[in-house]
Amino acid sequence: MAEQSDLERPAVDGAAGEEFLRAAFQVLLEEAVRKGTDVAQKVCEWKEPHELRELLDLELRSHGEPAGRLLERCRDIIRYSVKTCHPRFFNQLFSGLDHHALAGRLLTETLNTSQYTYEIAPVFVLMEEVVLAKLRELVGWNSGDGIFCPGGSISNMYAMNVARFQRFPESRQQGSRALPRLVLFASEECHYSIQKGAAFLGIGTDNVVLVRADERGKMIPEELEKEIERVKSEAAWGGSALLSRKHRQLLAGIERADSVAWNPHKMLTVGLQCSAFLLRDDSGLLQRCHGAGAAYLFQPDKFYDVMFDTGDKTVQCGRRVDCLKLWLLWKAVGSEGLEQRVDRAFACTSYLAAEMKRRDGFQLVLEPEFINLCFWFVPPSLRGQQGCTDFGPRLGKVAPAIKERMMKEGSMMVGYQPHGTRPNFFRQIVTSPAVTRADLDFFLDEIERLGCDL
Amino acid sequence: MAEQSDLERPAVDGAAGEEFLRAAFQVLLEEAVRKGTDVAQKVCEWKEPHELRELLDLELRSHGEPAGRLLERCRDIIRYSVKTCHPRFFNQLFSGLDHHALAGRLLTETLNTSQYTYEIAPVFVLMEEVVLAKLRELVGWNSGDGIFCPGGSISNMYAMNVARFQRFPESRQQGSRALPRLVLFASEECHYSIQKGAAFLGIGTDNVVLVRADERGKMIPEELEKEIERVKSEAAWGGSALLSRKHRQLLAGIERADSVAWNPHKMLTVGLQCSAFLLRDDSGLLQRCHGAGAAYLFQPDKFYDVMFDTGDKTVQCGRRVDCLKLWLLWKAVGSEGLEQRVDRAFACTSYLAAEMKRRDGFQLVLEPEFINLCFWFVPPSLRGQQGCTDFGPRLGKVAPAIKERMMKEGSMMVGYQPHGTRPNFFRQIVTSPAVTRADLDFFLDEIERLGCDL
Repeated sequence: MAEQSDLERPAVDGAAGEEFLRAAFQVLLEEAVRKGTDVAQKVCEWKEPHELRELLDLELRSHGEPAGRLLERCRDIIRYSVKTCHPRFFNQLFSGLDHHALAGRLLTETLNTSQYTYEIAPVFVLMEEVVLAKLRELVGWNSGDGIFCPGGSISNMYAMNVARFQRFPESRQQGSRALPRLVLFASEECHYSIQKGAAFLGIGTDNVVLVRADERGKMIPEELEKEIERVKSEAAWGGSALLSRKHRQLLAGIERADSVAWNPHKMLTVGLQCSAFLLRDDSGLLQRCHGAGAAYLFQPDKFYDVMFDTGDKTVQCGRRVDCLKLWLLWKAVGSEGLEQRVDRAFACTSYLAAEMKRRDGFQLVLEPEFINLCFWFVPPSLRGQQGCTDFGPRLGKVAPAIKERMMKEGSMMVGYQPHGTRPNFFRQIVTSPAVTRADLDFFLDEIERLGCDL
Repeated sequence: MAEQSDLERPAVDGAAGEEFLRAAFQVLLEEAVRKGTDVAQKVCEWKEPHELRELLDLELRSHGEPAGRLLERCRDIIRYSVKTCHPRFFNQLFSGLDHHALAGRLLTETLNTSQYTYEIAPVFVLMEEVVLAKLRELVGWNSGDGIFCPGGSISNMYAMNVARFQRFPESRQQGSRALPRLVLFASEECHYSIQKGAAFLGIGTDNVVLVRADERGKMIPEELEKEIERVKSEAAWGGSALLSRKHRQLLAGIERADSVAWNPHKMLTVGLQCSAFLLRDDSGLLQRCHGAGAAYLFQPDKFYDVMFDTGDKTVQCGRRVDCLKLWLLWKAVGSEGLEQRVDRAFACTSYLAAEMKRRDGFQLVLEPEFINLCFWFVPPSLRGQQGCTDFGPRLGKVAPAIKERMMKEGSMMVGYQPHGTRPNFFRQIVTSPAVTRADLDFFLDEIERLGCDL
């Protein structure tokens, strides 16, 4: 056959490939890491979708392109991407850059293996075990189980599915139709993944009973069952407070939960995604609930102890290695370094809250207890008009208008949202260890500057 | 407060961080990329779990470690990890290294954003749209929808959930209990994620009807419904054959399916994970099925067209950017370059099958039709004894014994499995573009060498 003669040589040029990788790394280091974290540079360079399509030429064609053109493309991708590592990016929970965690991510990508068997991922099977045990220890459990999942929503689905299976093991074979009506109690302030999960798992969103929460979004513990569900249904980003001796009391009682979803990709700057589903059970429930024992992956007649083939605990088949980036960061800074980061995030929040009370026009939605700071900016034209009937609707237009201006200037990014009857307010979260007091002052000044004429 | 004085300076040292990144990249390039793809180096360095634990010192402590020690750790991690990019690694569907795709992955990790809104991922929202449209075009659809998922198993769950929702929209609110009994027809040779998904989604594995397949593992199309389900339930790695004009007829009729799960992280060497769930529907079914409209992410009063905020189509919240690595590879080699890779994988398989027929002791389980080659190696002591009653059990011990030897020598890796009454056989898949005829000859010689005395 004609094409068999081609088999004499590899189809990739290793030397040219390495050269390209080096050059791409250089671009990445200069443009994304250095400029991307430089306060003198923009956080984003806003383009409308139609403009950006034209600038990027995304179309995929028959012919390949030379290395130089591909590197230009990498530069453009970085240029028009949002700089989530920038000290003035406050828009999401996963802001900031830790160089060690990033090194762990680059290494993970290069080793490109799947976390299912010891055979194929010996280092990472053992590493995941150690990292999960450490996280469980922080929760307050001496034993247990767990797994890294693709994000907190799926971790929450695991919690729901394992709970269903533990009470009704027949659910696995017979499905939800064979079970009595199952009701899931969750705080009315629970993360929307609880609803998504209830729909996906065949439980049905009508069977999610939202229990009234107090003004801080905490469920009011009227009944024992509701109390039991409380910790389970808390959103996953708060777990990292367990690292702080000073702030871990915010999660007091978490050790009484049956399972915990914890996303170190948020407060710990580990990088997307790193989400641990932790289970107190140590009887093998996770394996019984999800295991399928596919013969082509999990051969029982292997020459080593197959209890190290942990991949059958998941509903996935291939599963990314999500432990290395957290492990390497932890080795680099130690538990005390992580603790300092958590404490620093609290200090930033408390500094901002104090400044807001000092400055005109800023109004806290709530006194912050954790590291999310919800506030309104009341522009001069609206001050003193709190009693007017159209105050709420007019205030609700302020945050979107300021957001549009800041994005078009690219000076910073912060999220906003309405909540119940409360009109749009900003929701500021500082997790990036690169943020300084100067960035926080800039943040407040910039809100004032962008909103002063509204 | 004491810690607020620390806010004057960033908590990360950018210059030292960059220096560490450079050094880590150097280690990664030399040890994982160069040595990891060098046939003169081992594919794996086998250690028992207790040995490896001791060698690695995985424990997480209070204090951090200096850069030099961390770099040593990176070296050790690479040393004891399996080299899935090595030309003699045949153990999994995702073998091989493409430098452009890897550059795309490194860039993805560095930009560290989530694929939910245009605001936060403008480039990647547009890029995902283009890549999914291109994949749909190859399936044979002019329109439709889709999303990248964390792996093929979850793509298959999407297919099942969307099918359930389309027929019974009330399933979302009311759950599976409110529906009539739903039965899922799948080939008895379907991927085990169908069973895992049925359990997870509350359908129940008892309601998966496994339809008899012929000796090639194809469902026998006795009934129309079964036929309709056929393409849906095919495992996700074959999709890339659509890129080959020569081999795409293997998937003839795929355009009649309602949805397709396609994992470019397999035959196309894109890197884990890159799994597309493609949907023929263009009425917004995916959004209706999964959307929750969380106000803090998907504000309707944004200043741009929110139809670009595609993140609510998923059951996840944060979602990794999985399109860039495939896009960059595609730009680098073009559709024709991808086609050549697919054709080359077929050529490798056909070369190996021909060689096996020429050599003593190799016996094909089936004539290969795709790029998986299932075969037994019958060692000299068992040849001519096919009629003996203990031939099967004795043959079944050969593959595990050879596998143990090859792993302990680290010379290559290939998987084995039993199937029904068939005893353990090897399952060889060549997808890596680095594999040459010399590697294939080595593969056969090595099986002979390791198995000659069994």
